[in-house]
Amino acid sequence: MKNTTSPVQVGDFAIGSSNFVVMAGPCSIESLDQFSETANIVKEYGATILRGGMFKLRTNPETFQGMGREAFDIAREVKKRTSMPFISEITDPRQVSDMAELVDVFQVGSRNMHNYALLKELGHVKKPVLLKRGFSGLISEWLLSAEYIVKHGNPNVILCERGIRTFETATRNTFDVNAIAFVKQNSNFPIIADPSHGTGATALVTPVALAAAAAGADGLIIEVHPRPSEALSDGFQALTPEMFKELMIKLERVLNALDRKIEKPQ
Amino acid sequence: MKNTTSPVQVGDFAIGSSNFVVMAGPCSIESLDQFSETANIVKEYGATILRGGMFKLRTNPETFQGMGREAFDIAREVKKRTSMPFISEITDPRQVSDMAELVDVFQVGSRNMHNYALLKELGHVKKPVLLKRGFSGLISEWLLSAEYIVKHGNPNVILCERGIRTFETATRNTFDVNAIAFVKQNSNFPIIADPSHGTGATALVTPVALAAAAAGADGLIIEVHPRPSEALSDGFQALTPEMFKELMIKLERVLNALDRKIEKPQ
Amino acid sequence: MKNTTSPVQVGDFAIGSSNFVVMAGPCSIESLDQFSETANIVKEYGATILRGGMFKLRTNPETFQGMGREAFDIAREVKKRTSMPFISEITDPRQVSDMAELVDVFQVGSRNMHNYALLKELGHVKKPVLLKRGFSGLISEWLLSAEYIVKHGNPNVILCERGIRTFETATRNTFDVNAIAFVKQNSNFPIIADPSHGTGATALVTPVALAAAAAGADGLIIEVHPRPSEALSDGFQALTPEMFKELMIKLERVLNALDRKIEKPQ
Amino acid sequence: MKNTTSPVQVGDFAIGSSNFVVMAGPCSIESLDQFSETANIVKEYGATILRGGMFKLRTNPETFQGMGREAFDIAREVKKRTSMPFISEITDPRQVSDMAELVDVFQVGSRNMHNYALLKELGHVKKPVLLKRGFSGLISEWLLSAEYIVKHGNPNVILCERGIRTFETATRNTFDVNAIAFVKQNSNFPIIADPSHGTGATALVTPVALAAAAAGADGLIIEVHPRPSEALSDGFQALTPEMFKELMIKLERVLNALDRKIEKPQ
Repeated sequence: MKNTTSPVQVGDFAIGSSNFVVMAGPCSIESLDQFSETANIVKEYGATILRGGMFKLRTNPETFQGMGREAFDIAREVKKRTSMPFISEITDPRQVSDMAELVDVFQVGSRNMHNYALLKELGHVKKPVLLKRGFSGLISEWLLSAEYIVKHGNPNVILCERGIRTFETATRNTFDVNAIAFVKQNSNFPIIADPSHGTGATALVTPVALAAAAAGADGLIIEVHPRPSEALSDGFQALTPEMFKELMIKLERVLNALDRKIEKPQ
Repeated sequence: MKNTTSPVQVGDFAIGSSNFVVMAGPCSIESLDQFSETANIVKEYGATILRGGMFKLRTNPETFQGMGREAFDIAREVKKRTSMPFISEITDPRQVSDMAELVDVFQVGSRNMHNYALLKELGHVKKPVLLKRGFSGLISEWLLSAEYIVKHGNPNVILCERGIRTFETATRNTFDVNAIAFVKQNSNFPIIADPSHGTGATALVTPVALAAAAAGADGLIIEVHPRPSEALSDGFQALTPEMFKELMIKLERVLNALDRKIEKPQ
Repeated sequence: MKNTTSPVQVGDFAIGSSNFVVMAGPCSIESLDQFSETANIVKEYGATILRGGMFKLRTNPETFQGMGREAFDIAREVKKRTSMPFISEITDPRQVSDMAELVDVFQVGSRNMHNYALLKELGHVKKPVLLKRGFSGLISEWLLSAEYIVKHGNPNVILCERGIRTFETATRNTFDVNAIAFVKQNSNFPIIADPSHGTGATALVTPVALAAAAAGADGLIIEVHPRPSEALSDGFQALTPEMFKELMIKLERVLNALDRKIEKPQ
Repeated sequence: MKNTTSPVQVGDFAIGSSNFVVMAGPCSIESLDQFSETANIVKEYGATILRGGMFKLRTNPETFQGMGREAFDIAREVKKRTSMPFISEITDPRQVSDMAELVDVFQVGSRNMHNYALLKELGHVKKPVLLKRGFSGLISEWLLSAEYIVKHGNPNVILCERGIRTFETATRNTFDVNAIAFVKQNSNFPIIADPSHGTGATALVTPVALAAAAAGADGLIIEVHPRPSEALSDGFQALTPEMFKELMIKLERVLNALDRKIEKPQ
């Protein structure tokens, strides 16, 4: 089984190479203190890219919708302090120009995999785009959504499996580990795994993260919060710093067993 | 079982009243001739609202994406000729102002049920919005998406069941007739049915349309094309004029049996 | 759309002819009084075939499993009193010989659509078999399961759509009305609808029953209980006698509108 | 995360202990030569338990249904030659007594997870039962099916995740790796993985097998055929001997990285 993935460059390293890339951080940026504290933690334990949501897509209009543009200064400051590349979700084609100077990777959420107006707009920038699979997106549709971005000018697409909607209700989503292996063998896009959304339960994140790595994923994106019970969104699936540390130790061992290693933060 | 639906006014009549409203027309506006011809046909056989796509959401970036703004003049002309209210799909929040003067009902497609940027923008207009169910949207999520529009200022939301994605592959989607009955009993929004997408097969449209009416739907939206095999999109699920005529005859008989009638074109 | 259904004879009438057949009764036989009372009610309001479970398939081993063979005498007595044909579920190939003298139609439940040992055994009798669709059975698999019975010698198979398992949780199952229309057009087996299991909610049974009739079903199987709140199984989806009466009135009107009528009890 | 699994003894070793158990062999026993050759191969590369189907559940009644009782002598002979414990599928409660002297583990296939007549019968023997998850079985239903066996007297139940039916069609099933982690944390039954059915594609078996191991599974069941293209059933998901050898090498490295090892054949 040959690896024909075309790596996508982010800063000084590439996603889709033999090195495994870990993105981590809180679901949402909540304050400078919270984001800075979390960034320091995930960097210390080996994450290379910092995640943090500013615009949140929430099913219920009455719930926290993210800090929005008020988070821009916080993100800018924490990037400066940690020197970490930053990934954040874009939810509206009108956000592209403002976000382009701030983020190193645009994240397209699961609900927007079919939002072709947004995908076309992201074709006009050169920044990498992390395209999450729609929670009911066929793999074939997902690859075509990636082609929307490529066709409009931006070849730097990274796929992200984050669990699909099935009949099962014991877990928030069903993480489709088959999709990791299938995409590696049938496309040239790098693919990473989001076991936080893929399971929707803190206790399941670590085993499923290791599974994704063993199946050949190019990286992970993980929700970490210093105090998950206080998180403004999705605390039920966030790892504590201690859990994240343990995950990184096991992850390195599993990857080494398969002749791979973790890309280290600079 | 009491009907507590709050009707939504479109022109001189209301959707969600005892009168049943039929929307019909081609999947896509392809030319003045094609759209005008189809409009005359559907009006003759009893449709009250004219449908016609201008911006199309297509899974594959290489397929026909709709005529876009080039269709605006065609739509304006056919509206004038037929005096029919016009419904068309909006796919980008930046289209709202241009489309607002042209359409009588904004259609939000299945892929955009979770596109909250678009829903919020549609909260700022007063025109009715037909909100299709996401093909994997829970009914509870669908009602919350409707609340996004209401919360931002526009109470004129009409729901549209258009089939959900399931394991079954004999039909394009699984039309969820339960959802019709459930929504009528558990929400105040009118709900109509789209058996064209709900089945994805011309031969199944009529029986499922009748089923939706018998289950209590407030109306239908139906794809009709003078020559389905020549349609630029979705011809496999379009009714011919003759089939549409037969559907309308049967529909009236079923509705009358349940003490309802079809809203007639003016 | 031609009807090529091959009718299946049950007593003096046929399922799959222009006449619509209603089967009704309690989920489970609980006592002679309960079953006799229910039988009288459903016969009075127009049901032609009496249903009543003796062997129940229950997900939880601690719940009521049906009266089993203790119900045989009750069923025999109520059949005699009402002169109604009797349908009941078979759950084990070893029950065939004992049940054959008692039931007029063998019911194969959803969980057993893939139980080929049972299907083969039912091929060796001549009694009609009502084959429910597996809650996750593809239509193509369902038709092949019917072929197991036919291939082993019994052509008298009636299909029953009873809802499929999907991501939706607002209803117990998703009643697949498309399947009714599809089967009528693509197979020769009669098909009836079970809106009790198809919805799993008393309030939804009537609209979905009417929908199934409008879509072309050959009949219905309905759970009725004199006092649903006291039922030992599935009371939440049973109609009261009054609801069943109203359903039959509306059903007749809808069928008449489509030039069909209800098969009357003798 | 504590491991509270209660190991199930098979011959001289236990499933659910720190040692990982690999079951392998052909989908179906086709001849003495084919079964003996395959058994030697899988034993050489490290499988501990020999699998081989005798009674096959096939969707289509016209396809190969297994050799049935004709395979008993072959199985007995190969067991003697290899000294390997033998697992084979039971499809009818009437097979229990005949099979009990031949098999070391009864396998209940996915289609029979809800076949309570069969499960009850298996409660009356003491042999271990491998209970595959129904392809649409909720985890909660699966655990209750296991309780049917336990309640009727047999506590020796091993669960097997084999992929679930979802909307995705790129793979035969969606292997639910979440279920592995969930069951380990929420039940006392050992759980193994079947990546052959879980993916339905030879090329995906190895990465998904490694994923299952990394997620904490207690073992694997793998289809291996000397010449997959000549297999009478499911050749498209069988590993060749060479592929199986490579899987075992990688598997050992991944398990060692997580402080576990593979149970060796005797």
